[in-house]
Amino acid sequence: MRLKEFKEILIKENIDACILLKSNLNKPDSNIIYFSNLDLSDFCCLIIYKDREPLVIVAKLEFDKSKKSSYIKNVIMLTNLLEQLKKYADCRTIGLNFDCISIKEYQRLTEILPNSSIVDVSKHLNDLRKLKTDKEIKKIKEACRITDGILEKCIDNFKKFRMETDVLDFIESQTRKLGLVNSFPTIIASGRDAAFPHHITSKKRLERGFCVIDFGVKFNNYCSDTTRTLFIGKPSENEKEMYNLVLAAQINSIKSSKVGVKTLEVDKACRKFLGKYQKYFIHGLGHQIGIDVHEGAFRLSKNSKDSLQKRMVFTIEPGIYIKNKFGIRIEDTVLLNEKCTPLTRFTKEFIAINL
Amino acid sequence: MRLKEFKEILIKENIDACILLKSNLNKPDSNIIYFSNLDLSDFCCLIIYKDREPLVIVAKLEFDKSKKSSYIKNVIMLTNLLEQLKKYADCRTIGLNFDCISIKEYQRLTEILPNSSIVDVSKHLNDLRKLKTDKEIKKIKEACRITDGILEKCIDNFKKFRMETDVLDFIESQTRKLGLVNSFPTIIASGRDAAFPHHITSKKRLERGFCVIDFGVKFNNYCSDTTRTLFIGKPSENEKEMYNLVLAAQINSIKSSKVGVKTLEVDKACRKFLGKYQKYFIHGLGHQIGIDVHEGAFRLSKNSKDSLQKRMVFTIEPGIYIKNKFGIRIEDTVLLNEKCTPLTRFTKEFIAINL
Repeated sequence: MRLKEFKEILIKENIDACILLKSNLNKPDSNIIYFSNLDLSDFCCLIIYKDREPLVIVAKLEFDKSKKSSYIKNVIMLTNLLEQLKKYADCRTIGLNFDCISIKEYQRLTEILPNSSIVDVSKHLNDLRKLKTDKEIKKIKEACRITDGILEKCIDNFKKFRMETDVLDFIESQTRKLGLVNSFPTIIASGRDAAFPHHITSKKRLERGFCVIDFGVKFNNYCSDTTRTLFIGKPSENEKEMYNLVLAAQINSIKSSKVGVKTLEVDKACRKFLGKYQKYFIHGLGHQIGIDVHEGAFRLSKNSKDSLQKRMVFTIEPGIYIKNKFGIRIEDTVLLNEKCTPLTRFTKEFIAINL
Repeated sequence: MRLKEFKEILIKENIDACILLKSNLNKPDSNIIYFSNLDLSDFCCLIIYKDREPLVIVAKLEFDKSKKSSYIKNVIMLTNLLEQLKKYADCRTIGLNFDCISIKEYQRLTEILPNSSIVDVSKHLNDLRKLKTDKEIKKIKEACRITDGILEKCIDNFKKFRMETDVLDFIESQTRKLGLVNSFPTIIASGRDAAFPHHITSKKRLERGFCVIDFGVKFNNYCSDTTRTLFIGKPSENEKEMYNLVLAAQINSIKSSKVGVKTLEVDKACRKFLGKYQKYFIHGLGHQIGIDVHEGAFRLSKNSKDSLQKRMVFTIEPGIYIKNKFGIRIEDTVLLNEKCTPLTRFTKEFIAINL
């Protein structure tokens, strides 16, 4: 993706080569997947030159697989990293992703390449990934479409479930049946547990009250992320009202997400919309999504400094969480173009189920 | 775990405080879990002083949960990291784990704490974690015991499975029923796929031939890791012989893992044992295990420089992988004391199942 643009940045910034490194000592760098399509479990080193074809060095165990799926034609087997870097990366100026490279790895690289000066390319990488290409959008749309389908099946089968883990088992098993993986550990939180946005799905019996279902899938390396909250049992009028308030806030936030608007303003407007309940909205309104389920370049939250632009893909996920009582969250993955459109489209109408 | 020993190291090395940081910009640092028992999904900052009680700063969303489960009594809510670090970490010499801290985070920390000199404590941390305490061993033993039970159930139910994903669904669902999570994505590889040690479990029908089952669970943050290879269909004499060769190599490697022996020697002896088949053994013999399924301090492989010591816990997992034909791997999590004892104990006898 956008390799050409990145090479233009390297030329402009006078960076001879950029080294993206996956090793035990670094935070996994999804920019490797972005440029090469390689999501490897072992070592991987991608070198992008300003004026030559890029190359990727992979471990022997994953060499055949990599040759098949890599966007980068030049795939080389790892033999001796030190010698290979001396051979392939002996450049005057080298770019590294300072967001991912550990100090230890940085020290090792400066020893291997003592004559190179090293600069940070994290901002350039984040800027590229902020705006999705047509191909990326297509993949995210497909991930979202699949997510909607799994959610529909899940609701259709809901009466069979007894434990929170039954719901999770169903969703993850359906995902695998499609040959896919989930984009993060599925959250199923019923009753009072729904009041914890980070609840870890337990073997607890599904409780009466709101039940938060938060999950996504990865399709061709791209993530979806959606949350629906349904009601187990017979809801009171007040419970219905609370749900509809969160829903109205979510729809309103989608409407107010326009090109040029500051992300912090969208977050602020949502809180204002929730009125006296805003103190129960205890997390940010949304996050960038793509290869990573939480991408780092921008967020919809009070400390964010970005403005919305065309081709941004992010989540909108307001919630109300009242401790020892209940939790409600409604989340879509959305795409911003002329206007903001949800890519996850399962119904947001109030659903009550008697178990 | 071993907080006292670590404080003694800080005193000896004249390091006033060690900051362990979990944030978006770092590789997750399992040393936080090691010292505090906190495995959080959000931000976490653990400060261990040489001469004061440690403290841990956690995000608001996980504050209540953290107070309940933290080994560190002093749990503080994150408000403003900059101000909180100035208040709590304004020391002359600060230790950081250079294996995990990214360059970006390092730069940020040096800006927040301009008067502190920063030193690497990664080696000290790795050394501590190399040798397990009684409490750690107890947890790993329990993880292994649970793994054996799940594996037994899996084999008992094997005739019901049709797809590789059916086996995976069963194992992961059984894990969740116990309120636990798996220590890594379960690998089920049948037929020719078994020749790839890093096969990603697919929705493919279970093929005749060897079927590799590689999984583990986490119990109280500690991992198990085991592999058994069973046979689907009727094996030939040659197939049985190949299995028994790997099994004999594995048992032999357990026997040759003795205190004082170099890890690279154990790896070498195993390869020698495999004779002409050693060229098909395409990965290392084993890895340290604990809070992380692959812990970094030592490996049993040709480039390793360690010697075996009492209280080490690691895997022994020889395999033979012949492309387009089959793969066999047999793996136990083992503990070294007077002698080396497998903690995973499910039978390693040849099992053939007709589907």
